Amino acid sequence: MHPVIEHNFQAGDVPGVLWSPPFQNAAPIVLMGHGGGLHKKAPGLVARAHDAVTSWGVNVLSIDAPGHGDRPRSRADDKAREAMRTALSAGDNEAFAQASITYMSALTPQAVTEWQQALDAVQARPEIDPSAPVAFGGGVSMGTAFGIPLTATDPRIKAAIFGGGLFTYDYLLQAARKVTVPVQFLLPWDDEHAPREGGLALFDAFASREKTLHANPGDHRTIRWHTLDNEFLPRHLGMLPN
Amino acid sequence: MHPVIEHNFQAGDVPGVLWSPPFQNAAPIVLMGHGGGLHKKAPGLVARAHDAVTSWGVNVLSIDAPGHGDRPRSRADDKAREAMRTALSAGDNEAFAQASITYMSALTPQAVTEWQQALDAVQARPEIDPSAPVAFGGGVSMGTAFGIPLTATDPRIKAAIFGGGLFTYDYLLQAARKVTVPVQFLLPWDDEHAPREGGLALFDAFASREKTLHANPGDHRTIRWHTLDNEFLPRHLGMLPN
Repeated sequence: MHPVIEHNFQAGDVPGVLWSPPFQNAAPIVLMGHGGGLHKKAPGLVARAHDAVTSWGVNVLSIDAPGHGDRPRSRADDKAREAMRTALSAGDNEAFAQASITYMSALTPQAVTEWQQALDAVQARPEIDPSAPVAFGGGVSMGTAFGIPLTATDPRIKAAIFGGGLFTYDYLLQAARKVTVPVQFLLPWDDEHAPREGGLALFDAFASREKTLHANPGDHRTIRWHTLDNEFLPRHLGMLPN
Repeated sequence: MHPVIEHNFQAGDVPGVLWSPPFQNAAPIVLMGHGGGLHKKAPGLVARAHDAVTSWGVNVLSIDAPGHGDRPRSRADDKAREAMRTALSAGDNEAFAQASITYMSALTPQAVTEWQQALDAVQARPEIDPSAPVAFGGGVSMGTAFGIPLTATDPRIKAAIFGGGLFTYDYLLQAARKVTVPVQFLLPWDDEHAPREGGLALFDAFASREKTLHANPGDHRTIRWHTLDNEFLPRHLGMLPN
């Protein structure tokens, strides 16, 4: 088991963290995106990141999404979050869906650009091999809402793990249709907010020849990163035979 | 890796085969059911059985379903198969579904009884520990059409792997609602005969607290036994920590 080295850094306006093994040998880079309202060192994300570093010796990159973590919140952020809170406390799931989709859509272009800038910054580090393969290694809900357009856009990403628990909207479906790399998709079967049909439609939309849906009982708050194929990332990052 | 010992036997009218490791030590028993038109030693089934014996040291039991393999075919079997063939060659999937459901339904009670008798016979063998745990270890299509009612009925079965590629009908849904043991369900996402929605409804119906749907692109003929959790059976058969 490798110890984990933590590098905190700033890529332009974006605070990021890179977890690495102590000895670099062209180690791949795995991107992990936090969920809505969370941040780059949310406990669940840190646990998965450490597991990936110690199990496979990869680098894991996490950044704060716009308006999250150590980032300033704009008035638009506050307004959007207020709209979601109001809808939730009124038990109005339709209004919650609309508010959530509006907020995700507004943040997506910036979030995708920032992911690419942060990856540029990591690949420019002296201890990192810029030709090492890259994967999107997970992130449910908002992490996936950004991860799908990112994976559709950035040819550096060679495989992706996405997680449900997010509303499916046209922009996301269109992005999914452009994803051709191998995909694992984790769907909470009983999400109390995001309809199951939307998650199934999103899985259906990926253009990838290799894609697997893993669905488990569980609601939005108890999405568990299990029943996935744990060798999916190392296999597609060239660390195990295909 | 263990070598595999093959015992061919007859349990009443039912020809069966038991694949075992050379040294028994209260080894669990895994039941594998063949698909429609196939038999107890269909190549795919034999490969999965050998893999289970050599990887985990379990016993694997396979039997010929009524009207299949070394069993005599009744006029009713011939008629039912003819109806399916006619529907298929006419490209009439609705008629194929009806013929297939009618045939599966007619065979199910006998098939379930015979599975139980064959398991009785195996448990009575001197080298087998009759208290060793039992699992239904897979079988797509017809194998699952019989495996679900069997698992709902026989309390010896502690975990089950089912595979889609079968039409979903009321009897099967009702049986699925009685299944409470941990389930893995493998769904071919693009089955050209059995509608995807039926497979999803079947997964939804299992009463099991622990159940996982694994869906992959692929049609009825190319269902691949991959992306499952390979430690599922050993975990639930007491061979790995839960």
